[in-house]
Amino acid sequence: MANDNSVKGNVIRDAGIICVGTELLLGEIVNTDAAFISRRLAALGIGVFRQYVVGDNPGRLKEMIGAAYSRTDTLIFSGGLGPTADDLTKETVAEWFGKKLVRDERTAARIGDYFCRSHRRAPHSNEKQAYVPEGSVVLDNDYGTAPGIIIEEEIDGRKKTAVLLPGPPSELEPLFLEKVEPYLMERSGGTIVSRNICLIGIGESEVGDIIAGMMESDNPTVAPYCGDGEVRVRVAAKAADAEKAAAAADAAVGRILGTGIREYVYGIDARSPEAELIARLREKGMTLATAESCTGGMLSERITSLAGCSDVFLGGCVTYANGAKTDLLGVPSETIEKFGAVSAETAAAMAIGARERLGASVGLSATGIAGPGGGTPEKPVGTVWIGVSTPDGTAVRKLSLSPTRTRDQIRKISCTALFGFAIFRISSDGRPKTEGIIEV
Amino acid sequence: MANDNSVKGNVIRDAGIICVGTELLLGEIVNTDAAFISRRLAALGIGVFRQYVVGDNPGRLKEMIGAAYSRTDTLIFSGGLGPTADDLTKETVAEWFGKKLVRDERTAARIGDYFCRSHRRAPHSNEKQAYVPEGSVVLDNDYGTAPGIIIEEEIDGRKKTAVLLPGPPSELEPLFLEKVEPYLMERSGGTIVSRNICLIGIGESEVGDIIAGMMESDNPTVAPYCGDGEVRVRVAAKAADAEKAAAAADAAVGRILGTGIREYVYGIDARSPEAELIARLREKGMTLATAESCTGGMLSERITSLAGCSDVFLGGCVTYANGAKTDLLGVPSETIEKFGAVSAETAAAMAIGARERLGASVGLSATGIAGPGGGTPEKPVGTVWIGVSTPDGTAVRKLSLSPTRTRDQIRKISCTALFGFAIFRISSDGRPKTEGIIEV
Repeated sequence: MANDNSVKGNVIRDAGIICVGTELLLGEIVNTDAAFISRRLAALGIGVFRQYVVGDNPGRLKEMIGAAYSRTDTLIFSGGLGPTADDLTKETVAEWFGKKLVRDERTAARIGDYFCRSHRRAPHSNEKQAYVPEGSVVLDNDYGTAPGIIIEEEIDGRKKTAVLLPGPPSELEPLFLEKVEPYLMERSGGTIVSRNICLIGIGESEVGDIIAGMMESDNPTVAPYCGDGEVRVRVAAKAADAEKAAAAADAAVGRILGTGIREYVYGIDARSPEAELIARLREKGMTLATAESCTGGMLSERITSLAGCSDVFLGGCVTYANGAKTDLLGVPSETIEKFGAVSAETAAAMAIGARERLGASVGLSATGIAGPGGGTPEKPVGTVWIGVSTPDGTAVRKLSLSPTRTRDQIRKISCTALFGFAIFRISSDGRPKTEGIIEV
Repeated sequence: MANDNSVKGNVIRDAGIICVGTELLLGEIVNTDAAFISRRLAALGIGVFRQYVVGDNPGRLKEMIGAAYSRTDTLIFSGGLGPTADDLTKETVAEWFGKKLVRDERTAARIGDYFCRSHRRAPHSNEKQAYVPEGSVVLDNDYGTAPGIIIEEEIDGRKKTAVLLPGPPSELEPLFLEKVEPYLMERSGGTIVSRNICLIGIGESEVGDIIAGMMESDNPTVAPYCGDGEVRVRVAAKAADAEKAAAAADAAVGRILGTGIREYVYGIDARSPEAELIARLREKGMTLATAESCTGGMLSERITSLAGCSDVFLGGCVTYANGAKTDLLGVPSETIEKFGAVSAETAAAMAIGARERLGASVGLSATGIAGPGGGTPEKPVGTVWIGVSTPDGTAVRKLSLSPTRTRDQIRKISCTALFGFAIFRISSDGRPKTEGIIEV
């Protein structure tokens, strides 16, 4: 560390986030950094009340720093630490604090090593990244060249803290987890514990109507929010310690599960429907195979995004052309001719084909019209048949999604609905509403 | 429309974006709305200098509105128009402008119809969404219940404009494109034309070193930014009309293509590497099939995210288990035993298998170790073999990605590298560096 001159004492209760980058203001990239930092701060019990985005413009950034520090004592910055001339966050924050930049020899050596390891010569522009504000804490970046930087300084009687992090998520995220969290953990008071009740098959408005009374509480807070094809009810309780906060959160969850939404619950704090499905199949010693038409690989992509899924997931077929459905999955061409590629019969044959061809316990299938083209009056865009074949039998269900949804949404919602359908089919407990399910 | 009392005259040159939602501050969702709105405003030549995010808290939102209006005359709001009690954007903006909320009968009828069409009863909470600030322009939402709202009002001699949009992207995006853009188009002066030079196989720092001189220009601006496995150089020129701006942008692109980065260019303004590949295959009347191990369906998912890809893409196999590689793709089990599932030989056999089994012109394959587990000293995490089989032959390449990258990044970069490899293999012009490519 260049020098640790941290001002002791003050507890960090809230923080602001400033993301710097003209590419964010032009909408060329989505601000995943703000979401990541916010999520981690919430877990530490540090409230985030404001996020800001500004371009690579020192004047506007400096003005924003001042405005943000008038509302909070701690700011987390992402971006603008790169090697190029338009990366100016470090320079601007240092100027705001009235600090010079000094060459950090350890960082200079680390950057040299970084390029050496990947058998490349350090470009000249990276020299700029070896400079840090004098007296700052330098966080070694094992995932890239720009170091993380923490500045702590008493200004007008209040300790102001600035945490500067590189913008690429592949650098920011591990740096935050490994080096910033331990730093903040020591400085945060109180703890928030949150629970997410995860639902498939019910809309946000309907959930809101059912739990309206509980949503008025300040602590724990209760709020529904919707993703693609699922709704989550977030319960967040704040207390002096984790045990008390957990007890308050769990009590609220119990009250919510006492309502009519219980039958749509596929998990509590589930990472995702696919993670929940894989975990439940693993518990039962079952294996999985997929057969996809309209989802085009999204189903297997979501499953294989889970590290270690290979003990459950064997593989799948993306049968986009009708010939592929027959050749790879053994769907009889007469079935496709008679009922169409988007039909209960084809969905059932695909699920059975995946299970049999790959020798899996469970086969999943999806075939539908994701749009924007390809719809007919009988089968409009948004018509998707999903199927689940298990040792106990095969069942299919029709989804009639709004044709105003985008292609991507129709595919995502179809996958989520199918994961939910599969979870409910393989579970003996709490079977949900079975309306619209056709046993084959 | 409730009443159009728009204040005539002023040109909209810049705007701020305020996204409202506690779920954003908790990091539970990523702010795609800000990116979408920014991208569209940039295309209209309206500069965005600041984005803000605030929670469902009327006090903080009101304070933020005042601060933001001190920097710009136009604000676009997303979120907080939902039916539940915590949705307060409309109420707070109306209060800031000193306007009452009045029931809009057309909106009330539209909400009733909306639920009727999906055979549901309108929940009581949706009644709230029929209220709009008096004198505002109401934008009918054909994709959900909350209407868009435009408020225009002269305050202290300046026309202040507020555009309120619902938060879900499936509602915000079409509403913006269909109703907000035409409104803004009439009120914006000057035009920005931007071009993106799209590169695969070179890093951001190296690009920055090569074009450092050009990055100092104010107009056109030139800046590199990196995605997963690709780098883009954005050139943005502003001028009085689109023709002049385009000429200035194109001249700068020409200068950049005169440098050493040319050989890494896979497209100009390419939507994505996969879109570029599919377009080039379509031009040549060729078809495509995929064989995926570590990418687990991501390759076919990215291809099928493109509407209308079915004339080129036939299908693919996700062969996660070794048995699936043999059964579905005909990879000889001796090949896997002798060389391993992650090897040049297996990648070649998979690409050939996909091409032959699906009867396609081109077969793509990827097999590797995406981590975090499964690495060995000889084949560490990040080792991925990619293959392209065409009528002219089959070639494979080894990627050695940094093992510090996440599973998701290794998969994304592998897909991007493979799309780039395929584009270069099927192109007769400008064949790039061929180092590390093994012809099979």
